[in-house]
Amino acid sequence: MYSKPKEVLKLEGIKRLDLIHSGKANDVFATSNAFIYEIESTDRVSAGNGAKKDVIPGKGVSNNTISTAIFKYLADHGIPTHFVGDGTTPASKFVLAADMIPLEVIGRLKTAGSFCKRYECPEGIEFDEPFVEFTYKSDNAGDPPIDRKTIAALLDQMQLENEREIDLMEFYTAHIAELLQEFWLNFGVEIIDFKVEFGRLENGEIILCDEISPDTCRLVDLETGEKLDKDRFRENMKDPEKGYNELLARLCNS
Amino acid sequence: MYSKPKEVLKLEGIKRLDLIHSGKANDVFATSNAFIYEIESTDRVSAGNGAKKDVIPGKGVSNNTISTAIFKYLADHGIPTHFVGDGTTPASKFVLAADMIPLEVIGRLKTAGSFCKRYECPEGIEFDEPFVEFTYKSDNAGDPPIDRKTIAALLDQMQLENEREIDLMEFYTAHIAELLQEFWLNFGVEIIDFKVEFGRLENGEIILCDEISPDTCRLVDLETGEKLDKDRFRENMKDPEKGYNELLARLCNS
Repeated sequence: MYSKPKEVLKLEGIKRLDLIHSGKANDVFATSNAFIYEIESTDRVSAGNGAKKDVIPGKGVSNNTISTAIFKYLADHGIPTHFVGDGTTPASKFVLAADMIPLEVIGRLKTAGSFCKRYECPEGIEFDEPFVEFTYKSDNAGDPPIDRKTIAALLDQMQLENEREIDLMEFYTAHIAELLQEFWLNFGVEIIDFKVEFGRLENGEIILCDEISPDTCRLVDLETGEKLDKDRFRENMKDPEKGYNELLARLCNS
Repeated sequence: MYSKPKEVLKLEGIKRLDLIHSGKANDVFATSNAFIYEIESTDRVSAGNGAKKDVIPGKGVSNNTISTAIFKYLADHGIPTHFVGDGTTPASKFVLAADMIPLEVIGRLKTAGSFCKRYECPEGIEFDEPFVEFTYKSDNAGDPPIDRKTIAALLDQMQLENEREIDLMEFYTAHIAELLQEFWLNFGVEIIDFKVEFGRLENGEIILCDEISPDTCRLVDLETGEKLDKDRFRENMKDPEKGYNELLARLCNS
């Protein structure tokens, strides 16, 4: 059903060109192949929609390595992704050039974070099955939650063709939730929630983009419950780098 | 399908007792009949979740009169409501005592207000059919938008029995939208959007509660587009009382 245009996968000799987008944590570069971007995971870290900012040395390499391992795992399990190969630095990867859909899709296994604050419910309540929420991706608007029916009423603005594409992103995200649960269990880690973003290829295909890393997931040690993600930075813990380092070590030493 | 317990409708000799809830604009009193509350629409006005406050003399009487006319109209067209009769003052009414469902249900005919700010879309775009949105009613949480699937995941907290009740509130609100459109057209007024709240009777029935007034609707003159609602206060216009007075006059003089 989902086929990548094979000719874009020739990575030999590909060159990084101009910076075309600098996000809060990642930089996106054009390359000598018009169908491919290079994404550099930086050491920049921010929270509260950019209100709190810092640098965590080594975070870019950790996140890129972790995200790449996850994207390969997801691709092996039927999720179409933008990943095409390792980049020109240890913190970068080559990806299919896609037009981003301005939605953040959140998968939740247990209640936590913004969900609990927003709806005043306790943390740690398990959902019967992976719960999928959408937010409208806009720094100006503060990434507000958006109802599926609101997305359906604003299809053009959301760069969607039809309502079935909302269902498709929900289906993918619920499937990704189950796959991530399994993936992290292998490393003694429980995933609480995560955020993904999707983009569209020129042929219309919707694929998983962005990254999946300790910046975009809530991850805790399965035994101790210790936080191993960006919450350490959000909550001003003394060693915000610990999650990135610890998870990279578990992945590489297993 | 929807029957009111008839014995509660005896209003002769009913007495107002203690204040049991003081909201931003309305006060709710117990009465000598345990099944009935008395709601007093006050002259208090606020905007921005209480950030801006004032008093508009006469607003309580206008709102109560307008809301009562609308609730009678809706009841005549098949919407079950809490209204049982006029109260002990021109600004008050007797209503069935109901447990409030902590959701605000918003009906939209055209895009406006928070919807446009939140999703960065232009004002005044007409929806193909009445559009229904839910927000979680909580001053602390800032009344955030809530997805139907999130409501379904938090049924207990939302004081709902099952997911069909979400559909029921959506059905009622879409129906109310069409009825309000018709109602206001008779008075040369266009309705842009409105907010309703529902409550539950002891027998489990879900009924329309709260009020429908220039405080809870966006209403504009059909010919000139002049604003005739609380937006005059929100936007610091020099005569914030004009909407209330004008609409009351149109209703009473028709």
